Amino acid sequence: MARINDTSGYLIAPDPARKRLTRAVQGTDQNGDPIDLRVVEERPLTIYLNSQEIVTAMTIGDYPEYLALGFLRNQGMLRDDDVLQGVDYDEELEVVVVRTAKQTDHEEKLKKKTRTSGCAVGTVFGDMMEGLAGVTLPGLAVRTSDLYTLAATINRTPSLYLEAGAIHGTVLCQGDRPLVYMEDVGRHNAVDKIAGWMLSEGVSPDDKILYTTGRLTSEMVIKTAMMGIPALASRSGFTAWGVEIAQDIGLTLIGRMKGQRFVCLAGEDRLIRDADPAKVADEPRKMGRKGAVL
Amino acid sequence: MARINDTSGYLIAPDPARKRLTRAVQGTDQNGDPIDLRVVEERPLTIYLNSQEIVTAMTIGDYPEYLALGFLRNQGMLRDDDVLQGVDYDEELEVVVVRTAKQTDHEEKLKKKTRTSGCAVGTVFGDMMEGLAGVTLPGLAVRTSDLYTLAATINRTPSLYLEAGAIHGTVLCQGDRPLVYMEDVGRHNAVDKIAGWMLSEGVSPDDKILYTTGRLTSEMVIKTAMMGIPALASRSGFTAWGVEIAQDIGLTLIGRMKGQRFVCLAGEDRLIRDADPAKVADEPRKMGRKGAVL
Repeated sequence: MARINDTSGYLIAPDPARKRLTRAVQGTDQNGDPIDLRVVEERPLTIYLNSQEIVTAMTIGDYPEYLALGFLRNQGMLRDDDVLQGVDYDEELEVVVVRTAKQTDHEEKLKKKTRTSGCAVGTVFGDMMEGLAGVTLPGLAVRTSDLYTLAATINRTPSLYLEAGAIHGTVLCQGDRPLVYMEDVGRHNAVDKIAGWMLSEGVSPDDKILYTTGRLTSEMVIKTAMMGIPALASRSGFTAWGVEIAQDIGLTLIGRMKGQRFVCLAGEDRLIRDADPAKVADEPRKMGRKGAVL
Repeated sequence: MARINDTSGYLIAPDPARKRLTRAVQGTDQNGDPIDLRVVEERPLTIYLNSQEIVTAMTIGDYPEYLALGFLRNQGMLRDDDVLQGVDYDEELEVVVVRTAKQTDHEEKLKKKTRTSGCAVGTVFGDMMEGLAGVTLPGLAVRTSDLYTLAATINRTPSLYLEAGAIHGTVLCQGDRPLVYMEDVGRHNAVDKIAGWMLSEGVSPDDKILYTTGRLTSEMVIKTAMMGIPALASRSGFTAWGVEIAQDIGLTLIGRMKGQRFVCLAGEDRLIRDADPAKVADEPRKMGRKGAVL
């Protein structure tokens, strides 16, 4: 499948040639012959909310500010009424500090919680489910013709995935146009970076579709809902809980989207079936969605 | 690719028919026709070490005791000299409590840490790297004929992956024989369940090979090393840091193992190339490694 050359339709497209995102690694193949491979980097990034250490994420390292902002937002730690004062990234220390005008609710909660239980991870999860309770998603109509166009465009867009593999991509889309394409070693990071970008730019989620290469687990569905995005599509499979949450909150959920095939798991009534699947090209085996040898 | 019928060679094989691991979900396909799918479950499981809440993991829910034990062990929170007093699982509360004879070092550390920083996640990561410092792996010779046999057997073993998809598998192997095959929604959970089983059964890691369907990230490599297993092979790709750690600590690392192809990224000198790749069957496209429609 030919790659597209013109990515000017994107607001942010992957930059597979960017330094520090990949490294050349030497190995030997099945015949014992040496091969040089381009491999994605993975770095720790520690996120602080004011003076509070929150989490260390493993990331490829691009857009650390968006990752921090989006993570805190999607976990419900940053709320609409928190006034951002700055996001400071220290490359050497591998730390991002998100500063708000006053201490957030979350810091107080975390302190109380850690006194009794010691760790925030359980709390984080509880907060996510809590944050979900107030979410209502707009009833966006989704055209299957747009979904097919998006998948074909995204899969042919030059990316770290096509270049090096072992990475997940998530794309913020509007109609049949992919807008912001983020990649990361953790599929959740790619989503969080998009959330951080949306927050920074004040972008409305109401008419957006999120496309991801990763599985539709509960966490992925919850993050999409926390961002207010009404539709989520993936090449990959899904878990029972992911489907259940999507059905409960009115998120249109499309899984296993490859070539002409897909499964609609929630939001069938919002789907406009305006494309003939038989006329959609099936996905060739060697479509390049794997790492390339240099 | 035909599935094998006889799994009696395994000590623990997947049990795709087991209740509570999958659920029937209804969707519509690309033509608007209703389809019933079997989908993996995903449940929260909160792990305690004595009175200390450590983490909430998302899991399919089988072997919660092994998951808890293996997680704590792989994070360096349970050490060789900690005396286990019991592992109690409460299905209704979705909680596992691992009890030791006396308070572990980790609990004291965690308390100190949380007083200043509030969350254990950063600590957890630091502890993992710290734990790695003392690890030396035995120089196990690995036969490529064994690797090919293992991959062919594992891929044809009835599993939740073949049944429902959207799940990762990890298999503890010895020579050409797969011993314990664990699956989970999170690839790290599958590894941790194997670690918990090894700890419970007192199994030596010295002559073992770990096979996984997931990517070879730093965390996967570190966990394998923490378990003392000298060889790790995967169908999937790898990150630069994963490769670097494997090279540093003497772990034999094999990636992108599909059909006759593989890449050796570390431990070339311990690899015995006793199989002719040209005689190994290449992997058919429809080998069934995806979710099945009911």
